[in-house]
Amino acid sequence: MRLYIAPQTCSLAPHLALEYAGAQYEISHLHFGNNQQRSPEYLAINPKGRVPALVTDRGILTETPAILVFIAQSYPQAELAPLHDAYEFAKLQEFQNYLSSTVHVAHAHRPRGARWVDDPAALEAMRRKVPQNMAECFELIERDYVRGPWVFGEKLSLADFYLFAIAQWLEADGVEPARFPKVQALQRRLEADPRAQRVLAQQSPPA
Amino acid sequence: MRLYIAPQTCSLAPHLALEYAGAQYEISHLHFGNNQQRSPEYLAINPKGRVPALVTDRGILTETPAILVFIAQSYPQAELAPLHDAYEFAKLQEFQNYLSSTVHVAHAHRPRGARWVDDPAALEAMRRKVPQNMAECFELIERDYVRGPWVFGEKLSLADFYLFAIAQWLEADGVEPARFPKVQALQRRLEADPRAQRVLAQQSPPA
Repeated sequence: MRLYIAPQTCSLAPHLALEYAGAQYEISHLHFGNNQQRSPEYLAINPKGRVPALVTDRGILTETPAILVFIAQSYPQAELAPLHDAYEFAKLQEFQNYLSSTVHVAHAHRPRGARWVDDPAALEAMRRKVPQNMAECFELIERDYVRGPWVFGEKLSLADFYLFAIAQWLEADGVEPARFPKVQALQRRLEADPRAQRVLAQQSPPA
Repeated sequence: MRLYIAPQTCSLAPHLALEYAGAQYEISHLHFGNNQQRSPEYLAINPKGRVPALVTDRGILTETPAILVFIAQSYPQAELAPLHDAYEFAKLQEFQNYLSSTVHVAHAHRPRGARWVDDPAALEAMRRKVPQNMAECFELIERDYVRGPWVFGEKLSLADFYLFAIAQWLEADGVEPARFPKVQALQRRLEADPRAQRVLAQQSPPA
């Protein structure tokens, strides 16, 4: 399998999942700086022009929550998701969908506001509200979702990889990460693991 | 199970799924007109103040794609999702996540722009771009996702319920639905089914 990634994006989540699954995989870096995600070559892989994209022997997958669950189902022995309990699986999916459709979107109004407005003053108005929206999202995550030490308690799962990828944006979004101690402890715990360190060291393309 | 719904929202998708699954379920209508989704009673059910929410005997589920897959897994004999093929299941999840995190969000910038800006001029700027964004989303859906007659070809699935729920917004979003003949044929096909008709007749609360 080949995963297309870019630094500081949610592609970090499936990258972590592949590593923890023990998968054989290769990484391709996209250079957002020169808009490589909009190149004809990449649009042939992902017409949406975004990362991540996962090339499998059956075809290409996009959308982070779908890719994450596909990795867990492809490597069940790694136990990265509660695949045999429909309710717990739905709670995992609920959390991942909240990250994707609400939290990621709240963040995107800072760096990617041009998706939704053309007017420069409106872009500024959007950016102003990002700290408040991101803080509200993380209050809910801290209070209702993170059981501790991992999102689903004692068992590391896909949810931790995805939350880790998105929580790395907090400071640049104008939110003090220390306001969310359970989230911060989860980040420190994952960063201390050599498998996560291997993945983090590969986020930037080789010089 | 009890599903909380409101007319003209994506709660129509899990409502259709429950009906086609042959589930025993009850419906509770929320009155968005008097902001009932923000009442203390409902916030105790769904702290996000949105629909849908599904009350199960194990707990409460939110987020449309998670609820949809939970229904399909709880009633496997209805065959509403490719549960035994990880790649096809991932394609279903990819499509549902695209609807949730990109298409629904593109639409929400018209009626729910106050989530992301406070400034009235910026709200107007957002609304102006909604027709273009929704049209681009549906061009991708029509070209890349709808195999026909249903999203996944000959087999009706969760994806059709979710697309149906979101496609009902096109006209109000300033997009001519006839531009997308495969989507429109799918809508007509579903509307012609007595099971869908039973669900559609229940969207508004009893007078």
